[in-house]
Amino acid sequence: MTRRGAFITSVGDLLASWNLPHATGRVYGLLLIREEPVSLDAIAAELELSKGAVSTAVRQLDSWGLARVIPQPGSRRLLIEATAGIESLLEASHARARTLIAALRDGEDLVNPGPAQDRLHDVIALFAGYVDVGSQMLSSCRRQGLGSGPREAGPAGGAGEQSSHP
Amino acid sequence: MTRRGAFITSVGDLLASWNLPHATGRVYGLLLIREEPVSLDAIAAELELSKGAVSTAVRQLDSWGLARVIPQPGSRRLLIEATAGIESLLEASHARARTLIAALRDGEDLVNPGPAQDRLHDVIALFAGYVDVGSQMLSSCRRQGLGSGPREAGPAGGAGEQSSHP
Repeated sequence: MTRRGAFITSVGDLLASWNLPHATGRVYGLLLIREEPVSLDAIAAELELSKGAVSTAVRQLDSWGLARVIPQPGSRRLLIEATAGIESLLEASHARARTLIAALRDGEDLVNPGPAQDRLHDVIALFAGYVDVGSQMLSSCRRQGLGSGPREAGPAGGAGEQSSHP
Repeated sequence: MTRRGAFITSVGDLLASWNLPHATGRVYGLLLIREEPVSLDAIAAELELSKGAVSTAVRQLDSWGLARVIPQPGSRRLLIEATAGIESLLEASHARARTLIAALRDGEDLVNPGPAQDRLHDVIALFAGYVDVGSQMLSSCRRQGLGSGPREAGPAGGAGEQSSHP
């Protein structure tokens, strides 16, 4: 695999762990190493994806704030550019984790007080703490102006709604 | 769905975001609300899984330090008990993310110095910072004695090796 190809695959693998489809992550990887905005056709050619697949990937990246779609005046052609804004994606992942952790807390009274309830309490506290520090880190990045700056949470029904079963 | 069923599904969904198969997460959910060690047959019956599927799930939980298998003297019967040790799972997820981030850093020179290289640098810094705070949080939990205490990293070829493409 070329160094470009290896880079693009790594970005795809990394974003897959935040519930983004692998093809979408690869498109983001390609956009990150392009110095100029690029057309759907050029993306499809380099990644050997259908134009429909690229179009879906670009819509997802756009809705998560990971890419910007730039219309060309007087043409139907669109150019696509990466942004550094991975916060929405991570925030959606946090929101999803928090919903699940709330469901776990609801279940604490399924267990009688004693060692099993203490164990459950520990597990929930670990997960909750883990998600909290991630959120704090995102907030501090935002204050420092890293990434694409403030942005609303991701789209309803977006990638963060899907679970990621291997 | 019963409250037990909802709880078990939530644990399955949450652990799926750390690359554990959904059935394995559900088995962990059931073990967490059982106050006594439980047999493979009892797990299979409650979760409507085959005994083979439960056996696979228990092996995974055991290798990740999420469950303990207790042999019964004079019998081939095994009893299974949850532990609160989610650190190995999160650590494996960090290790995997760090490998991918290292691959991204290797790609920084695919882009000429300028705005595109700055953007790439920002994205990598965000991901790396995110993984670092998660690791720090795990270390501080371990110092406080939360979870199952120190444990070696997860098994080679385990769930953390898989990527999670929805």
